[in-house]
Amino acid sequence: MLETNSQTEIASIMQTLGSQARVAAAALAQVPTEVKNQALRAAASAIRDSEAEIIAANAADVAAADERGISGAMRDRLILNPDRVEAMAKGLEDIANLPDPVGRVMAEWERPNGLQFQRVAVPLGVIGIIFESRPNVAADAGALCLKSGNAAILRGGSESYRSVQEILKALQAGLAVAGIDANAIQMIPTTDRAAVGHLLTMSDDVDVIVPRGGKGLIERVTAESRIPVFKHLDGINHTYVHAGANPDMAAQVVLNAKMRRTGICGATETVLIDKNLLVSHLPGIVAALQEAGCEIRGDASVQAIIPDAVLAKDEDWDTEYLDAIVSIRAVSGLEAALEHIAAHSSHHTDAIITDDAEAAEVFLNAVDSAIVVHNASTQYADGGEFGFGAEIGISTGRFHARGPVGLEQLTSYKYKVRGSGQTRPA
Amino acid sequence: MLETNSQTEIASIMQTLGSQARVAAAALAQVPTEVKNQALRAAASAIRDSEAEIIAANAADVAAADERGISGAMRDRLILNPDRVEAMAKGLEDIANLPDPVGRVMAEWERPNGLQFQRVAVPLGVIGIIFESRPNVAADAGALCLKSGNAAILRGGSESYRSVQEILKALQAGLAVAGIDANAIQMIPTTDRAAVGHLLTMSDDVDVIVPRGGKGLIERVTAESRIPVFKHLDGINHTYVHAGANPDMAAQVVLNAKMRRTGICGATETVLIDKNLLVSHLPGIVAALQEAGCEIRGDASVQAIIPDAVLAKDEDWDTEYLDAIVSIRAVSGLEAALEHIAAHSSHHTDAIITDDAEAAEVFLNAVDSAIVVHNASTQYADGGEFGFGAEIGISTGRFHARGPVGLEQLTSYKYKVRGSGQTRPA
Repeated sequence: MLETNSQTEIASIMQTLGSQARVAAAALAQVPTEVKNQALRAAASAIRDSEAEIIAANAADVAAADERGISGAMRDRLILNPDRVEAMAKGLEDIANLPDPVGRVMAEWERPNGLQFQRVAVPLGVIGIIFESRPNVAADAGALCLKSGNAAILRGGSESYRSVQEILKALQAGLAVAGIDANAIQMIPTTDRAAVGHLLTMSDDVDVIVPRGGKGLIERVTAESRIPVFKHLDGINHTYVHAGANPDMAAQVVLNAKMRRTGICGATETVLIDKNLLVSHLPGIVAALQEAGCEIRGDASVQAIIPDAVLAKDEDWDTEYLDAIVSIRAVSGLEAALEHIAAHSSHHTDAIITDDAEAAEVFLNAVDSAIVVHNASTQYADGGEFGFGAEIGISTGRFHARGPVGLEQLTSYKYKVRGSGQTRPA
Repeated sequence: MLETNSQTEIASIMQTLGSQARVAAAALAQVPTEVKNQALRAAASAIRDSEAEIIAANAADVAAADERGISGAMRDRLILNPDRVEAMAKGLEDIANLPDPVGRVMAEWERPNGLQFQRVAVPLGVIGIIFESRPNVAADAGALCLKSGNAAILRGGSESYRSVQEILKALQAGLAVAGIDANAIQMIPTTDRAAVGHLLTMSDDVDVIVPRGGKGLIERVTAESRIPVFKHLDGINHTYVHAGANPDMAAQVVLNAKMRRTGICGATETVLIDKNLLVSHLPGIVAALQEAGCEIRGDASVQAIIPDAVLAKDEDWDTEYLDAIVSIRAVSGLEAALEHIAAHSSHHTDAIITDDAEAAEVFLNAVDSAIVVHNASTQYADGGEFGFGAEIGISTGRFHARGPVGLEQLTSYKYKVRGSGQTRPA
């Protein structure tokens, strides 16, 4: 591991990495599906074969992290065991089984002059992935990039450097079996933070940046990047219990939306409830949440019904708890719910619970979020649940990709125009 | 016209403009097609009704530009006459007649758990358009943004300020007729260049920037923008005459590709020709070009056949002439042509002329340009010719939109998920 590099050295390392990636990407764009799948399956075998080396490298990472006093949650994300190694290998095979997004004919038409047009999917090019602690992201993201014909430049956190290095060896062994340029998946060979600064400004050699990690990482990437970024900063998601909601469905869906996993970006953070439902629906919803260990913060009208609820402060409506805490606000109706969501949502995923189909359509049209849901849990905000097979992240941006970013979203397109000697009239 | 503003004043003007645009965009996203079309048709009438005012404002712009000594080409682009005013009005009506890109169901599917997914087109939000000299871009771009449900912030060159102001009045009169917020189309109310600097960093209130103008403008926008940009910097386009080319088709298509209009981004700048065709095909191609007044710059083997050709220098292969000049290079075959294009193309539009279908497919797959063409002129690189009805520009970027940027490319999407109480399993 290179730990101390001069700034000149880092600039040169990054430049080399970038131009190697660009060359590898040009070749990879033309590699047939079966060859990419062969590489993915061979990489899965290589991961299984090097389980011992991966776990040993990971143990060294964990030991170094323990010395520096890593937090419990980060430590858990860092650790690899035989099950997690097998899950990585299985993940590669799953991606091999997904359809190839490259070469899809997205549209075709003919013009009156006989010109035939095709819009055909092509890879984006080079993707930089910056991630924290979970070393298995290297396998997952590298494989998604490979399948979509993109070269990947990986940058894990310094705490997972040795683990990522071993995983990369296995991925590159897979590339070698299929005869694909090893530079199709590279990692930044230094833990120096300045290297990330370079990556974010290499707009000639990098086409998109995917940050996977906490808010601090994403804020830094957003502030510094001169390259488009697939990102979501927050998941302040709402579930709105409308006047037409079935009480049992409301209780079950809210419980799942908030508590299935509290730490994921699709978790509901705020429940809005029609004021007419405070007596009929709220107690059932709160009982289910409290039984699961959730703290309730409510406005005054919620507190009037649920005396042990904490009184919500203004900042509660703008807080992503990522924890067993929910804020609940009573609203006068659909319009007020839409206003609250427009003002406080992070435009990730928002849901309405109602049997009133008309109200549901108004909500689905008016709420300006990447994912809008009727009568289901916001925790379905996930590429796998959408049927994308896998995702590299979720985007709340409006540009290029919105919502789960799967293989299709990792492609661009070009137009093929076929003629028979047409010349354009003056 | 505000000509001298303090920097504080400009910052405040731009902030107001941006937040007004964001509010207008939120409302515009929900406006039905017929209401948007009503606004476009009313704006067309208003443009016709204010022909005298528009032409008077334009005359003042031209007089001021003459005083500063404007160039002939710029002066021609600046001038509005009754024909050009009518063309603007007609352009608005044409856009009213195009299908609404908002609300299109781009994909729909159901998952085994019964959840129903729809991917639905929504507007991008707020679009900043920065253009030079041609004041009619204000009408054209404003109308495309309106039809696609986006709020527009227009910034013309200082030389067209008064003309754009009059055109904007007519557009806003159209908005008023349909009851749409006047802030759906705004212009920057100062000619101070610092205002553009603000626009390019207003990433909270502006979703995409479209620069329309010369290389200087596009370079400045690219360097300064913190917002995604739809752009092409160069159109260094190639027409490759392959060994299998019909000589007549080659001569006609090359002539059109180079000489139909030399100043547009889809014009061919370099012709590549198989060395085996130097005797059989080259004289016919060159004769047609020379008769149309084109200067020939060729490599040594071209010069051997065409003695009056200028010997091309290295920089000729990287030059966008935008003029009646062509560079011609002999290549050993398809592979060499692909190598030259990979090294020198600006990835805008590249064409192959051949009757060899297999060679054509290799070319269409391998050339990494927004538009790849078989047996037709590169001058078809245009949204109108693609059947898009209209375009706001052409993008050589790979992110979000590539090639002609029409109404569909001015939209993003969201996912609507409809369920019946589904909760996500652990």
